Amino acid sequence: MTRPTEPIVIGYLGPAGTYTEAAATGYVQWRSSREPFSAELRPYPSIAKTLEAVASAEVPLAVVPVENSIQGSVTTTLDTLWQLDGLHVQQAIILPIAHVLIAQATELGAIETIYSHPQALAQCQRWIETHLPNAKPLPANSTTEALTNVQTHPNAAAISSERAARLYDLPVLAREISDCPGNCTRFWAIARQPAQQAGSHTAIAFSTINRPGSLLQPLATLAERGINLCRIESRPSKRGMGDYVFFLDLEAGQQEERTRVALEQLRDRVEILKVFGSYEALKLD
Amino acid sequence: MTRPTEPIVIGYLGPAGTYTEAAATGYVQWRSSREPFSAELRPYPSIAKTLEAVASAEVPLAVVPVENSIQGSVTTTLDTLWQLDGLHVQQAIILPIAHVLIAQATELGAIETIYSHPQALAQCQRWIETHLPNAKPLPANSTTEALTNVQTHPNAAAISSERAARLYDLPVLAREISDCPGNCTRFWAIARQPAQQAGSHTAIAFSTINRPGSLLQPLATLAERGINLCRIESRPSKRGMGDYVFFLDLEAGQQEERTRVALEQLRDRVEILKVFGSYEALKLD
Repeated sequence: MTRPTEPIVIGYLGPAGTYTEAAATGYVQWRSSREPFSAELRPYPSIAKTLEAVASAEVPLAVVPVENSIQGSVTTTLDTLWQLDGLHVQQAIILPIAHVLIAQATELGAIETIYSHPQALAQCQRWIETHLPNAKPLPANSTTEALTNVQTHPNAAAISSERAARLYDLPVLAREISDCPGNCTRFWAIARQPAQQAGSHTAIAFSTINRPGSLLQPLATLAERGINLCRIESRPSKRGMGDYVFFLDLEAGQQEERTRVALEQLRDRVEILKVFGSYEALKLD
Repeated sequence: MTRPTEPIVIGYLGPAGTYTEAAATGYVQWRSSREPFSAELRPYPSIAKTLEAVASAEVPLAVVPVENSIQGSVTTTLDTLWQLDGLHVQQAIILPIAHVLIAQATELGAIETIYSHPQALAQCQRWIETHLPNAKPLPANSTTEALTNVQTHPNAAAISSERAARLYDLPVLAREISDCPGNCTRFWAIARQPAQQAGSHTAIAFSTINRPGSLLQPLATLAERGINLCRIESRPSKRGMGDYVFFLDLEAGQQEERTRVALEQLRDRVEILKVFGSYEALKLD
């Protein structure tokens, strides 16, 4: 008889019904299909609080959104990873985003207001303009919070997932309302220790001393080793306009010799270097 | 007697009372102090509609936010500039952002909800947690729209500017509520023709064919000419996860020989290159 594994607690950006919960659930299913693994999900009210729970060892692992294929980076995740120390990326999780319109009303003509997270509203903007030109889009703190407005207002609609509609027992009025097909969001599973397996991508961030040429040298270091970037993002250092922290995704694993050498050189050419580690991507259906 | 100049219409992200209106007003005052210049401001409901008004020649000039020193890029501005053709940056305008808390209530204890644009709420997050731990932050479409909630709810507060409080005849309950001192926003004045004067910075954007090494070559082209980047941003191309448009601010004027040569080489090494032009920054008080 195999001993049942103790469930680990995984923090996520809640409440229940968010896309992050769907990503965390997919991650747990995938891990438990490969090894003895069980987990209990714990919602947190913000990305910052979710990541702080990992940093303070309140939970061993957390899942947070990092990038959407239409809206781009989730900047709070990048900024919080920079502020906290000792966090590592374990795994990327890619989740297709299929927005639906949820409402008590049975026809589109009855809808007066549409609540959702501003990113979800932006992703359905053209559909709203075409099908609900007279309805007013109103921002909510999460796609799930928008559902509480639907519960209390017969002429309100919310943009969220089919899964959230089921969880909150609300009817779906329209499907396939996303403006861009192939809409998906990338999440990161974050822990205090580096990933155990080797990965094909490495996430790093650095700050520079704010002077002419300060970004050129670090980028040249990577170029000299033939390491391509698939993504680079400037985030304000909050020390003043024009002073940045740069987030890079390298197309190279941390275990590779060229990466090891490049990161060593980089450390001498930047102010602060943080290596979040190497990871592979898990694509969910 | 000098002939009075015909006022030009300047589009801006409205409604009246937004920080963008303050930036546009400052720009008009600065220009009319240097040359015969008068302007009439016209509010638009979104950044996309403001820029489309310039592209379609409905207005000759528009002012839109492009970057905040705490929150980073205004991504809608970048994405819309990429989608529309033939727009140029005339001038950067840097405006200090001084948030105040506006409410009918005369003490903090009476405040139950705080409305504002999500960026403004984020910029005052720590102040809210310290001084209004029991109030609920709620997103609004603009700092000005938040004021309508204050007009109708005695226990609601809004985060906006001192100037907006005056315009809407509402009292200020607390000042200096921004978490980071030195909070400022950079705006761009956008027109269909390039700026007439030479500038010290050049804004460009390019897409690449999505294959390994595709970002390395363009960055190497700039590095070879000693052109530093002060900022680089990856925005989703909306063609699929991992496919980007890169926005760069070069520390070099478009009129310089090295810039001319680098941009020529760059054109052969990228898929689509857009040069938004060179500009100088106007700092407002």
